[in-house]
Amino acid sequence: MELRKLGEFGLIEKIARIAGGGFSEVIAGIGDDAAVLRISTKKCLLITTDTLIEGIHFQSSYTTPFLLGKKSIAVNLSDIAAMGGTPFCFVASLSIPPHASYKFIHHLYQGMISGARAFGASLVGGDTTRCPKRLVITITMLGMMQPDRVIYRHGARPGDGIYVTGFIGDAALGLALIKQRKKSARFRSLIEKQINPIPRIREGTTISRMRLASSMIDISDGLLGDLRHIIKQSHTGARIWLNRLPLSPLYQQHWRDGARRRYELALSGGDDYELLFTVPPDRQQRITVLQRACGIPITCIGEITEQKGRITVLDDQNKEITCRQEGFTHF
Amino acid sequence: MELRKLGEFGLIEKIARIAGGGFSEVIAGIGDDAAVLRISTKKCLLITTDTLIEGIHFQSSYTTPFLLGKKSIAVNLSDIAAMGGTPFCFVASLSIPPHASYKFIHHLYQGMISGARAFGASLVGGDTTRCPKRLVITITMLGMMQPDRVIYRHGARPGDGIYVTGFIGDAALGLALIKQRKKSARFRSLIEKQINPIPRIREGTTISRMRLASSMIDISDGLLGDLRHIIKQSHTGARIWLNRLPLSPLYQQHWRDGARRRYELALSGGDDYELLFTVPPDRQQRITVLQRACGIPITCIGEITEQKGRITVLDDQNKEITCRQEGFTHF
Repeated sequence: MELRKLGEFGLIEKIARIAGGGFSEVIAGIGDDAAVLRISTKKCLLITTDTLIEGIHFQSSYTTPFLLGKKSIAVNLSDIAAMGGTPFCFVASLSIPPHASYKFIHHLYQGMISGARAFGASLVGGDTTRCPKRLVITITMLGMMQPDRVIYRHGARPGDGIYVTGFIGDAALGLALIKQRKKSARFRSLIEKQINPIPRIREGTTISRMRLASSMIDISDGLLGDLRHIIKQSHTGARIWLNRLPLSPLYQQHWRDGARRRYELALSGGDDYELLFTVPPDRQQRITVLQRACGIPITCIGEITEQKGRITVLDDQNKEITCRQEGFTHF
Repeated sequence: MELRKLGEFGLIEKIARIAGGGFSEVIAGIGDDAAVLRISTKKCLLITTDTLIEGIHFQSSYTTPFLLGKKSIAVNLSDIAAMGGTPFCFVASLSIPPHASYKFIHHLYQGMISGARAFGASLVGGDTTRCPKRLVITITMLGMMQPDRVIYRHGARPGDGIYVTGFIGDAALGLALIKQRKKSARFRSLIEKQINPIPRIREGTTISRMRLASSMIDISDGLLGDLRHIIKQSHTGARIWLNRLPLSPLYQQHWRDGARRRYELALSGGDDYELLFTVPPDRQQRITVLQRACGIPITCIGEITEQKGRITVLDDQNKEITCRQEGFTHF
C-alpha cells in the first residue's frame, strides 16, 4: 500500500489499530486533539505533540525566531484548548541546521518559553541535535483537568448547534498575502494571525467549566476538514450556512462580494487555531455568557444533522454548494 | 556566540537559564535524564524526549524498521530507567521522507509499540509529517514514581562507589563492526547491542526500590561523558580503575591484550544504555541482592572523590592515563 493513497488520517487510523488497547490508564489514546490519561480520580493528564518543519510548516524568512518559537507552542496549546484543558508543561526537541546561530536559537527558545508562560506552562526538558538541512521543532505539551470535564470529538448529536470562536480564514489569507509579498501595514492583523496565533486556552477552559459543549476540536487544518473529524467520530453529519461564517472586516474587504474564492479560505484554509464546538439546544442560551467572558465573537455557523458522514454547505439562497477541498493533509 | 563553540551541553545550560523557575509543580526541570513533576503527594511524573535522525543517529541500511522503532523507544525508556521510574506512555512524532513505504512505517510503529509494551508503556498519540529528505523520529516518554524514590544526577558524595550494569563498550564496537561490514554471526551479540539495546528499566526500578543509589544516569554518550554529568551536578570528582571495567568476553577477544584502543570504546563509545550509579559505603553490601534480582553483572568500577570536576582514570599499575575524548556530543 502506498502512503500517498492511504493519506495522513488513514495512516493514523492504521497506527491506532496497531497500538491497540488494554491499558487501563488510557481514557482516550490516538484520534483526538490530545490523549487523556487517568492519574488519579480527580485528575487526568492531557498529552499532545506537534512538529513544525522548515520549508513545510514555516519559512524562516517570513517570521522571526521569537514568533516561530511562540507559534510552535501555540499550535500545541491549541490542542490542549480543544479538550478544555489547562496547560502544565512542555518539552522541546530541536534539530538545528549548521547555519543557525546561537542568537537565532536563543530567541526561538525565548518565544517558546514566553508563549507557554502566558498560559501557565513551563519548559521542563528537551533534546537538541545537529541536523544537516532543516530546522525541525517538535513540542510535546502536557495539560491537566478533571476527567469528567474533558470535551472529546465524539459527543456531537443531531440538532446541536455548531459554533466557532473568533474569525475564520484570516490566517490562510495572511499566508497568501505573505507569499504575494503584500506585507503592508493595512494587512498586518491578517499576517499576525498567521505568524502569531493566539491559542484559545481561556475559551476552551471556560467552555469546559460551563459544561457547554458536546464536542470540540481546534481548527488547524481548515474548518471543513476539522468538522469532518467531529462528524466522523460522532457518527453524524453537518450543515453549514455560508453567510453565517464569521469573516473579519479585513477579510471581507479583501474579497469583492460574490468573488468565487471569498469563502474558500474560510472553509478550507488552515492555521486559524480557533475552536469549533457543538452545543446541544438546551444549553445554547448560555452562549451569551461565554461571549461576555471571552470578549471575542462566538458564532453559530450551522448544525449537526443525522446524515452520517455528510457535510452540506448552503449559500445565501439556501442552495447547496460544492467544495473542492476540505482542508490540509500531509502525503 | 557560535553554537559550535558553545557545544551541546553549553546550549542546554543556557536554555535552562532562559526557562527559569517559578513553577511549583516542577521538582526537576532541564538537566537530568528526565524532568520530574509533582502531580500528587504520592506520585510524580517523569518526562523525557529523544530524537533519532536518519544519517546521524542511525542508517536505515544496518537495521530493520522494527528494530529501529524498538530502539527509538529504548533510548527514551533508558532515561526513565536512569531516574528509577516506571514507564507509563509515549507519543511519537515522525517526519517521513517520500521514499518510505507504508510497510516500513507499519513495522517501525510495531517496533515502537512492542518495545514499549514489554515495559508497560502504551502509544497514546503523535504526529506524522511528510518530510523531504530524512526520517526523523521524536519520542516523548512519560513515567511515574513516588517522589521520594527519584534518583537524580546530583546526589553523589566522596567515598561513594561507582557502579555500572552489564557490559560497557559492546554497542560502540558493534557499530564499528557494522561500518567495517563485519556482520558475521560471531559478532552478533555486539551488533545486537548496537541495534537492539535493552533498556535497564527492571534494574532502575530495583535500585530505586532498594534505595541503593545516591545518584544515577544512563550511559548513552559514553561512560566518561556521562560520569562527567554526575560529578558536575554533584560537585565532586571521580576515580576509575581501567582493569575493573566490565568488558564482555567477545569485546575482550576483539582487542589484543595491551592494544591501545582496548579501553577507548568502553570509556568513550556511546549507545550502551547501561546504568551508571553511585552507592554510599554503608549500602554497598546490598549490591549482591541487586545482582541476584537482576541477573546481569553489576560492577564497581571506581569511586567518587573530592577533587571537583576531575575524572582520573588509572591503569593496571595505578598510573593515571589521559583520555582523548570523553563522549559523544552534538555541534
